[in-house]
Amino acid sequence: MLKLQLLPILLLCAPAAAQHHFVLTDTATNLHTDTFQVSAADLGQPGDWSVQRLTLRGGKQEGVDSIVIRTDTLTAVILPTRGMSVHHIDVAGVRVGWDSPSADIVHPALINLDSRGGLGWLDGFNEALVRCGLEYAGHPGEDEIVDNVGNISKQQLTLHGRIGNLSASRVELVIDEEAPYRIRLRATIYERSFYGPRLQLDAEFSVVPGTRAWRIKDKVTNIGASEQEFQLIYHGNYGPPFLGEGARCILPGRTVAPMNAKAEEEIASYGTYRAPTLGFVEEVYLFEPAGDEDGRTMAMLINPTGDLATSVSWNLSELPYFTLWKNTAALKDGYVTGLEPGTGFPFNRKFERKHGRVPKLAAGESRSFTLDYALHLGAEVKAAETRINKMRPDAFTIVKGVPK
Amino acid sequence: MLKLQLLPILLLCAPAAAQHHFVLTDTATNLHTDTFQVSAADLGQPGDWSVQRLTLRGGKQEGVDSIVIRTDTLTAVILPTRGMSVHHIDVAGVRVGWDSPSADIVHPALINLDSRGGLGWLDGFNEALVRCGLEYAGHPGEDEIVDNVGNISKQQLTLHGRIGNLSASRVELVIDEEAPYRIRLRATIYERSFYGPRLQLDAEFSVVPGTRAWRIKDKVTNIGASEQEFQLIYHGNYGPPFLGEGARCILPGRTVAPMNAKAEEEIASYGTYRAPTLGFVEEVYLFEPAGDEDGRTMAMLINPTGDLATSVSWNLSELPYFTLWKNTAALKDGYVTGLEPGTGFPFNRKFERKHGRVPKLAAGESRSFTLDYALHLGAEVKAAETRINKMRPDAFTIVKGVPK
Amino acid sequence: MLKLQLLPILLLCAPAAAQHHFVLTDTATNLHTDTFQVSAADLGQPGDWSVQRLTLRGGKQEGVDSIVIRTDTLTAVILPTRGMSVHHIDVAGVRVGWDSPSADIVHPALINLDSRGGLGWLDGFNEALVRCGLEYAGHPGEDEIVDNVGNISKQQLTLHGRIGNLSASRVELVIDEEAPYRIRLRATIYERSFYGPRLQLDAEFSVVPGTRAWRIKDKVTNIGASEQEFQLIYHGNYGPPFLGEGARCILPGRTVAPMNAKAEEEIASYGTYRAPTLGFVEEVYLFEPAGDEDGRTMAMLINPTGDLATSVSWNLSELPYFTLWKNTAALKDGYVTGLEPGTGFPFNRKFERKHGRVPKLAAGESRSFTLDYALHLGAEVKAAETRINKMRPDAFTIVKGVPK
Repeated sequence: MLKLQLLPILLLCAPAAAQHHFVLTDTATNLHTDTFQVSAADLGQPGDWSVQRLTLRGGKQEGVDSIVIRTDTLTAVILPTRGMSVHHIDVAGVRVGWDSPSADIVHPALINLDSRGGLGWLDGFNEALVRCGLEYAGHPGEDEIVDNVGNISKQQLTLHGRIGNLSASRVELVIDEEAPYRIRLRATIYERSFYGPRLQLDAEFSVVPGTRAWRIKDKVTNIGASEQEFQLIYHGNYGPPFLGEGARCILPGRTVAPMNAKAEEEIASYGTYRAPTLGFVEEVYLFEPAGDEDGRTMAMLINPTGDLATSVSWNLSELPYFTLWKNTAALKDGYVTGLEPGTGFPFNRKFERKHGRVPKLAAGESRSFTLDYALHLGAEVKAAETRINKMRPDAFTIVKGVPK
Repeated sequence: MLKLQLLPILLLCAPAAAQHHFVLTDTATNLHTDTFQVSAADLGQPGDWSVQRLTLRGGKQEGVDSIVIRTDTLTAVILPTRGMSVHHIDVAGVRVGWDSPSADIVHPALINLDSRGGLGWLDGFNEALVRCGLEYAGHPGEDEIVDNVGNISKQQLTLHGRIGNLSASRVELVIDEEAPYRIRLRATIYERSFYGPRLQLDAEFSVVPGTRAWRIKDKVTNIGASEQEFQLIYHGNYGPPFLGEGARCILPGRTVAPMNAKAEEEIASYGTYRAPTLGFVEEVYLFEPAGDEDGRTMAMLINPTGDLATSVSWNLSELPYFTLWKNTAALKDGYVTGLEPGTGFPFNRKFERKHGRVPKLAAGESRSFTLDYALHLGAEVKAAETRINKMRPDAFTIVKGVPK
Repeated sequence: MLKLQLLPILLLCAPAAAQHHFVLTDTATNLHTDTFQVSAADLGQPGDWSVQRLTLRGGKQEGVDSIVIRTDTLTAVILPTRGMSVHHIDVAGVRVGWDSPSADIVHPALINLDSRGGLGWLDGFNEALVRCGLEYAGHPGEDEIVDNVGNISKQQLTLHGRIGNLSASRVELVIDEEAPYRIRLRATIYERSFYGPRLQLDAEFSVVPGTRAWRIKDKVTNIGASEQEFQLIYHGNYGPPFLGEGARCILPGRTVAPMNAKAEEEIASYGTYRAPTLGFVEEVYLFEPAGDEDGRTMAMLINPTGDLATSVSWNLSELPYFTLWKNTAALKDGYVTGLEPGTGFPFNRKFERKHGRVPKLAAGESRSFTLDYALHLGAEVKAAETRINKMRPDAFTIVKGVPK
């Protein structure tokens, strides 16, 4: 049922933009609808989709805003309260996501990113897709920055940054009025502080009803007056049924380097997965991927039997690096792998800066990032693998030793 | 008045379990009842009891969930939002509890356990009973652990751990259908993080209408895949009218050791209390209690005139250690004593581990803890003291020097 | 419209005090009105004023309690959830306040004062007036205190203390029944912890309808049993249209000292402002002001054309020190100046103590602070400047070198 109070917005905006606009949250106008629901029928559109806001209740989840997008083919749960993370997507009967030991969808008010020596982020880590960034995106530890009085100052970074635990100041649902009737959930999240970062993320999650694909289309803007660094890693996480003994991750790598000692030991089998293994120590592999003539590349996680896969495609001009995180621990400890396109690797920012992988934005400058995710079934898996293989470069370098 | 929406649950569960079940919070089903009330009359039971949920409003208390259990003999206030702590119990016209300078029932979102060098826990410390644990339960400071990549890693522990500031994911009220009609408030609290603890606390506070007793019955479960350490201390806290000049704490000690220098100085009078004393420095005494043939032991706090007491009884096989905390400071600074059965003492975990007092749970293993609390009036005090004296061992060793 | 449920309070209190009392929040009675509105017409008073409670919704602002006081001449927004800060005041069509890069009115649950090396306070810094204090009020860093066991202990202080991020336990609106019908918003905020501070702030913001003035009248009380230190700085912050190239800050200084190297370089022009300047490094000037025969003094910020000003007047017996903070950075980075009467300067408390600027309160002792703020238009500016000039002492010392 379409909420009546939202009707005027619909009527106002629809003719102009050929899109239906529904503002769900807007701190600028003190607007926050506790309940919201709209469906294809409400808008006279074909198909059987709906979008519903749900406020989570109880325990550590109290007050978390959850948006459920349902189409004929998939159900996606997006969390504006937690940085617009994608909690999970059920598509064609398959769950894209994983079972984290941190199972609660924790309200950011209960997360202390600085706890455990900067590992507090892990207390809420359970999403199918969480962004790492924006001021910093990698490992915790000390960095050196120029502070507000012009001195070199030490800064303690926290794991994967703040954006995954920042709440959206504006949330808007935009439905295309014309085929293919794309459904777009947009949010604006500010990562800003006095004498700190001044970064704006305009995040969009969208789907076309009837497909088994979903898209992230983000824009990061420097809203300060001076040049600023930023970092962004798209931390996509998958468990069974994609992950399993003999599952594979493929991508057209130009180079790969181990990030830690365990990865170095196992680099010969970087692309295949073990069964859940008690006491497994994580392995992290760092790729410089190749792409097609347009710079587009693709990474895919294929299940053990080769008839189910999930992929992410993006342009290397936007995200030139890719991190593969293998954590094939026991099921109860988090049996999961991460496929992570990024502006850099998840080393501490100090290290990344030294190696030229920390991009900068001029005052007012924006940079956009589009990632296309899809589920592949049966023969589609082989077809997608063929596309990836066509992107492979002539040479593939396996770097020895952990970069320093 | 019994809320109508809860009636189906009642009807569904009652025949099977000979108990009435009311689910008040369940994050798994996104259930959280903002208001709830049930009484003896609603269930056709004898007596005049009621259970009511109350959401605290305003200031630092905003949103804290409070459950008030009233019987003919007592009123207990339990806090699912704050680790199922017992805020206070009014029994037979006597308040079991104390007046803390941290008087607000602070929402955990406003507590930073890492602040003040790991003493942030004290910002919300005011309960009659608060659990310390589960990953760690003692003093703040550095411990060394084996981290997720197999290295020895430093961990900064915070005072008394996290469990007292974690919110229950599930809260259930269970009323026995048959005499003595025990009223049980149950909650499940998770202390878990990726690359961190994976511990589940099933906490139960229960009373039998008509009695002046209350019971804690807890179960701690290792929900991870590997063996885990845990710690648990039941920090019971009492002020006047139990505490006062000449009040006594008695228990059948086998050994006692001072935990700090002040306690060492005053060890000769460890069992008696001073009047409120401005600038009093806390004294902490560490006991290995003896028990009866079944391993049951008991500690009791007796008021200065000997006609009012409160006791806790438990089994030494569950909680072999007991800490007595004397903080007879000025009334406005917190005139309070703690009677604290535990799996160990409140030293930093590093010290406790060295001395073999940090228990472990195998994957999937649970351990249960039952503590029976009671109020004693008039002649009952002497009778209880006699029971405790019968438990006394032949020898009682007073250890000199603070353990190192 | 006057809410009906508040009527009894009105009727009850009005005859006794010659004031209308409305309790909006009271944790002691679990009272918190989500909506509240009262107007001159409701009380049969002259003029056209109203007071309205508004709960902010969405993003980082969710749940912040905002009180909007409107008179014929001004609109003030006060934040009980954030230490009774004054977010901004629109008076005679002019906004008193500034545009902070930390634009959100952030709920304290989302602020970690310890983050960024103790600079987390800056994540929510955007008010026209925010109090710094009460346990400590200045720069972050290490101090040494006598802890609860009598030892010298290190304490990490956080920038500007906790009071600006503590929520009021009690909020009351008091309307004088007789001319000039002063409207008083009162709140009680506790800064207290076990083994920590025991300080109570009774804060009052008030206006007289028809005037272009507003008043802060605070009382700080030691609610502990022993003597306690406290610190308090009134951090008033202004941007355009007061601030601009050629704007001036005037006050009757007896001495001025630079707080940082940049201020030392620019001390010759301490009283005048630059245009917004990209990369500007803050300058902080420390004054010992003189006053009139009653000890009253005044500081005023005058716009570049000299026809608009805002001033603060207070008594030096209450607040003997004044800090001028110049941060004429680029507009998007926070073009702002702070006029800050205080019990001391914003150095770390360790430094302030050494220099005798950390006052103490005996047990139960209170100290009061009244600050009168006003807007000056046209010829009023010159008149106010004349008043300030009359307060000037015979000698004005410019101290060389940053104090150490």
